[in-house]
Amino acid sequence: MTDLEKRSINAIRFLAVDAVQKANSGHPGLPMGAAPMAYVLWREFLKHNPKNPLWHDRDRFVLSGGHGSMLLYALLYLTGYEDMTMEQLKAFRQLGSLTPGHPESHITPGVEATTGPLGQGIANGVGMALTERFLAETFNRDGLTIVDHHTYVITTDGDLMEGVASEACSLAGHLGLGKLIALYDDNKISLAAPTSVSFTEDTGERFKSYGWQVLEVEDGNTDLDAIRRALTEAKKEKNRPSLIKVRTTIGYGSPNLANTHTAHGSPLGPDEVKATKENLGWPTEPDFHVPDDVLAGYRQAAAGGEGIERSWKELFDEYGKAHPEEKKTYERFFGGKLPEGFEKSIPVFSPADGSVATRKASGSVINALAPVIGNLIGGSADLAPSNNTYMKGIEEQQKKSPGGRNIRFGVREHGMGAVVNGIAYHGGVIPYGATFLAFSDYMRGAVRVSALASLHTIWIFTHDSVWLGEDGPTHQSVEHIMALRAIPGLTVIRPADANETAEAWKIALKGTGPFALILSRQGLATLDRSVYADAAGLTRGAYVLGDSEGGTPDVVLIATGSEVALALKAKDLLEEKKKRCRVVSMPSWELFEMQPAEYRRKVLPPEIKARVVVEAGVRQGWERYAGDAGRIVSQDTFGVSAPHKDLVKKFSFTPERVVEEALASILEAAR
Amino acid sequence: MTDLEKRSINAIRFLAVDAVQKANSGHPGLPMGAAPMAYVLWREFLKHNPKNPLWHDRDRFVLSGGHGSMLLYALLYLTGYEDMTMEQLKAFRQLGSLTPGHPESHITPGVEATTGPLGQGIANGVGMALTERFLAETFNRDGLTIVDHHTYVITTDGDLMEGVASEACSLAGHLGLGKLIALYDDNKISLAAPTSVSFTEDTGERFKSYGWQVLEVEDGNTDLDAIRRALTEAKKEKNRPSLIKVRTTIGYGSPNLANTHTAHGSPLGPDEVKATKENLGWPTEPDFHVPDDVLAGYRQAAAGGEGIERSWKELFDEYGKAHPEEKKTYERFFGGKLPEGFEKSIPVFSPADGSVATRKASGSVINALAPVIGNLIGGSADLAPSNNTYMKGIEEQQKKSPGGRNIRFGVREHGMGAVVNGIAYHGGVIPYGATFLAFSDYMRGAVRVSALASLHTIWIFTHDSVWLGEDGPTHQSVEHIMALRAIPGLTVIRPADANETAEAWKIALKGTGPFALILSRQGLATLDRSVYADAAGLTRGAYVLGDSEGGTPDVVLIATGSEVALALKAKDLLEEKKKRCRVVSMPSWELFEMQPAEYRRKVLPPEIKARVVVEAGVRQGWERYAGDAGRIVSQDTFGVSAPHKDLVKKFSFTPERVVEEALASILEAAR
Repeated sequence: MTDLEKRSINAIRFLAVDAVQKANSGHPGLPMGAAPMAYVLWREFLKHNPKNPLWHDRDRFVLSGGHGSMLLYALLYLTGYEDMTMEQLKAFRQLGSLTPGHPESHITPGVEATTGPLGQGIANGVGMALTERFLAETFNRDGLTIVDHHTYVITTDGDLMEGVASEACSLAGHLGLGKLIALYDDNKISLAAPTSVSFTEDTGERFKSYGWQVLEVEDGNTDLDAIRRALTEAKKEKNRPSLIKVRTTIGYGSPNLANTHTAHGSPLGPDEVKATKENLGWPTEPDFHVPDDVLAGYRQAAAGGEGIERSWKELFDEYGKAHPEEKKTYERFFGGKLPEGFEKSIPVFSPADGSVATRKASGSVINALAPVIGNLIGGSADLAPSNNTYMKGIEEQQKKSPGGRNIRFGVREHGMGAVVNGIAYHGGVIPYGATFLAFSDYMRGAVRVSALASLHTIWIFTHDSVWLGEDGPTHQSVEHIMALRAIPGLTVIRPADANETAEAWKIALKGTGPFALILSRQGLATLDRSVYADAAGLTRGAYVLGDSEGGTPDVVLIATGSEVALALKAKDLLEEKKKRCRVVSMPSWELFEMQPAEYRRKVLPPEIKARVVVEAGVRQGWERYAGDAGRIVSQDTFGVSAPHKDLVKKFSFTPERVVEEALASILEAAR
Repeated sequence: MTDLEKRSINAIRFLAVDAVQKANSGHPGLPMGAAPMAYVLWREFLKHNPKNPLWHDRDRFVLSGGHGSMLLYALLYLTGYEDMTMEQLKAFRQLGSLTPGHPESHITPGVEATTGPLGQGIANGVGMALTERFLAETFNRDGLTIVDHHTYVITTDGDLMEGVASEACSLAGHLGLGKLIALYDDNKISLAAPTSVSFTEDTGERFKSYGWQVLEVEDGNTDLDAIRRALTEAKKEKNRPSLIKVRTTIGYGSPNLANTHTAHGSPLGPDEVKATKENLGWPTEPDFHVPDDVLAGYRQAAAGGEGIERSWKELFDEYGKAHPEEKKTYERFFGGKLPEGFEKSIPVFSPADGSVATRKASGSVINALAPVIGNLIGGSADLAPSNNTYMKGIEEQQKKSPGGRNIRFGVREHGMGAVVNGIAYHGGVIPYGATFLAFSDYMRGAVRVSALASLHTIWIFTHDSVWLGEDGPTHQSVEHIMALRAIPGLTVIRPADANETAEAWKIALKGTGPFALILSRQGLATLDRSVYADAAGLTRGAYVLGDSEGGTPDVVLIATGSEVALALKAKDLLEEKKKRCRVVSMPSWELFEMQPAEYRRKVLPPEIKARVVVEAGVRQGWERYAGDAGRIVSQDTFGVSAPHKDLVKKFSFTPERVVEEALASILEAAR
């Protein structure tokens, strides 16, 4: 290691140490230990242009151990990402800074993924590598390799203990994602203790069993050549992802805290900061010191990225000349645009179609769109036949068919979630992932990040209530619709019939941020839209499906999904009893709340206080729309295993029950 | 294989096939393929007494692939579990039967664990094996081995793809749980497809990397001796768990559906049922046929269990004579009783203690109880120093200290959840598991099962809001309290100060079903209980902390956890404005809803419609208690990374804001 290399690495370390100390909060240990591998990777291997963090063909870098965020911020600063100024480093973990406690992709240019919830980052990397290979297969032509980049991940003990990482890495091995390279910061220390107390498996052997190439760097603290050799070796391997175990020392350089879990998650303290600087031959002041030659070296190397992007642009122009249609498609994909008139291919369902489960309607829509939207890609966690998510006639994503768009995620819900997020982070495609609604629990960690990072991912959750019947309470959702609605930024849609399902797909494709489509197992009558309002009302979240004749309604029935038909039956009965009734289909709270107050008042007039809400899930939260005088027909206990028809009776989801509640609410409202 | 063996195995197969066919719903493939290993295990290895399904020292059996439930029900019937009658088999998947679609431990005697959500069953097995070893270490004395049983699991491809299984099995290897034996029904077919499309890792090598012994049975369809040899070999290994890969054929015997994914999850159909019976030399009618000699054989073998339990009882009597104190303790442990007067050891906090984070108060309570409640066992997913869950001076649960009660789960939240459930299923101990509230998402699958199966598990979720500050939105919970409240049967408690925390622990220890304790990272003032009502009010879910003098309150402020202090400050300000104010601390909705209506009306008088709810989480659901005229001070967007004090301002959680909302609500209520 040259003196300049040593100081360049120490610059990373001490930017992290000083920033954590200034914030009096943060995790210095990882940046101190991982600085050498990060230095080699970012200086000598990473293809990127700090002047354009969004250049499509850049290598992707994910810091899966997001708690080491200062490592990444230091690298962004040193290599010259414009927004990442010294002021930002000094504002680490402060309100409004670009340097939050854990990396957030929607906040900081150059941050590819929101990490911190462990295990997900490396799974995001799997999704990125999958996408790169898919786009390469789709667009590259002889001599015109416009998609060609690697995905690098720095991952930690904590990540590799997490099941989500196991799931995604097993899948990555199966798919043979050769351009995924993970550097494992193997420091034998986690937050609470040395890994010897809980994590003594042979991680290298485990990754070999997944089908990965496993390489080792024995001394990741000082042996830069070994890191270089391993990265070079990893890049040579085209058919397997690579894990490079890099043996490091957490808190490297700290005389008293190195190799202890204390260095993981707390500032070193002023005395130890000083001692560490002295130990590594670093000036004890000023803080945030970066030697001029060190900065110049980083900036110079990164400046090369401009040239590389320029060459790529030339290549891309050439590509455009040779393949003008493909170029247009490429630009549409990366522009996040849908093909003009794509809606026309979406089927319109008629009452003559009879009873159609919304999962099946969704399957029809997916299959109608598959040939039209060439970058719609996704699949199910081993439930494709049940989730109706398989695109017939479209290739399967496999080692031998990397251009396939049907992904077989296996029984790996959380892995699927984080891989789908990784696909969305990469850009250029629209991903979806599917499972039973009850198992949305398994992937909730990833659904949450999709909302936080505002990723355009489509989650398909079928078998949406106790009405799935015989499989019983382990598979019957009662609380999940509401638990998903609780996640800020996630748009949850539970369509009432086939045409609402089609509308849900339209808005999910055109929208921003993540969507969750909540779909029925059982058949639902296709509503006659010549009698009831157009299904396009779904796009406003809630709409009046029908009003009784004769003036202001006596009561408003609000329902979602499979319960809308029930509300309509209750309306007929109420009319027999001379009660005027409005039925509101309310597939999406989030879309409804985005409407102007005027529209909302029109659909749910504040003066009509007699209301009944009907949804086969927990009531929690429906009070918002029911109001004090309203009633709620809900499912507040776990279901039981029995045929659908028996459950309807057991849980009293009958028109008569709704009528009863409506009459009670009318009385209550009149008090 | 003898003819009787063959027919005994076919009896299992066809009970499953016929039951699934009769229900016209279910999963015949697994029972048909796994019948031989189940036969050998249950006939020749499993130590159990069908006459007493709750005998403590029985071997535990978990069917991790719960969709194969008919395998288990058939075994329970054949071996003579009284409740499992032929009528029950014929009522498979029907309302009110003991034979639900997936096994439910709280429904069916002899079912040890509620399975179906994949991966959790084998993780439950890890918890059971850990508990057995712990109790054996605690109670066994020379020559008096009163705790000595194995845990057997039948596990599937689907299970082993799940991250929760990876996490738990890595931990099991680390802990060296020698009496855990998993039979892997390696049939290469999952629900949607052959495993070749998504699951091609070398599972055996993976388990070896975890530290397991891996054995193989090449022909699990017919080679009973190989199954016997493998089980014998597995039992010989004392220091490592064993995985026996048993190569089988899904839907074995079905001429047209064997070895296809169609056999996984659908009835065979009448024609194929007939063809399969013919193919295996089974009478085509009547359905549910069990030859007399087959039944007699099973019953006779199982009858041996009575003798084994009798011998155990004699041993236990002898144990009681030699070790009367230990016997008493053993009986208390298994009786689910707490030591008399255990509450006395719980610390009482005084205002002089100043600001105490409820996670720290919880830590004090745990540490005070640790020596008193000898079967309190648990730990954290690598966050012990933050969750304050480590019992100081108590041994750590490790390979070399199997009597330890401090469990180091590693960064494995879902695995922890399912292992803790397994500990609770086993019985004899009171388990807890801890992580940050935001990461409750990672283990939600297991929390749900704890509620469904009504397990006495205590979940500790700390760092309960945006107030954790600098770690930022990935770590800041906003939606989780409400998402947990949405789970039926889970008691969620968010205490307001140290003394409420102590009360929360008391009720969690004494209660039934699972509890979630929601605890603050930051210090909270210890309320002066000579001024405010006693913290024991917590046990009623909500209670009046204080009322302004002078008659009926003008407004009720309802708050939980850290926001209670805020409500009390607002009360002072409101009194300055001559408004009479009531502050209700509402740590637990579930406990409150269990109170008589009279009590609930006393705390929240229906006639007082001016109300403000304050909780640093999403508002969803609080409308129930706020009512139409009420206001809600909530946190409905993701947080941001910044110091606590800056967030308080940014998100306006100030007394002035609460006062403003209170005045608005008073106006609204007066309309």
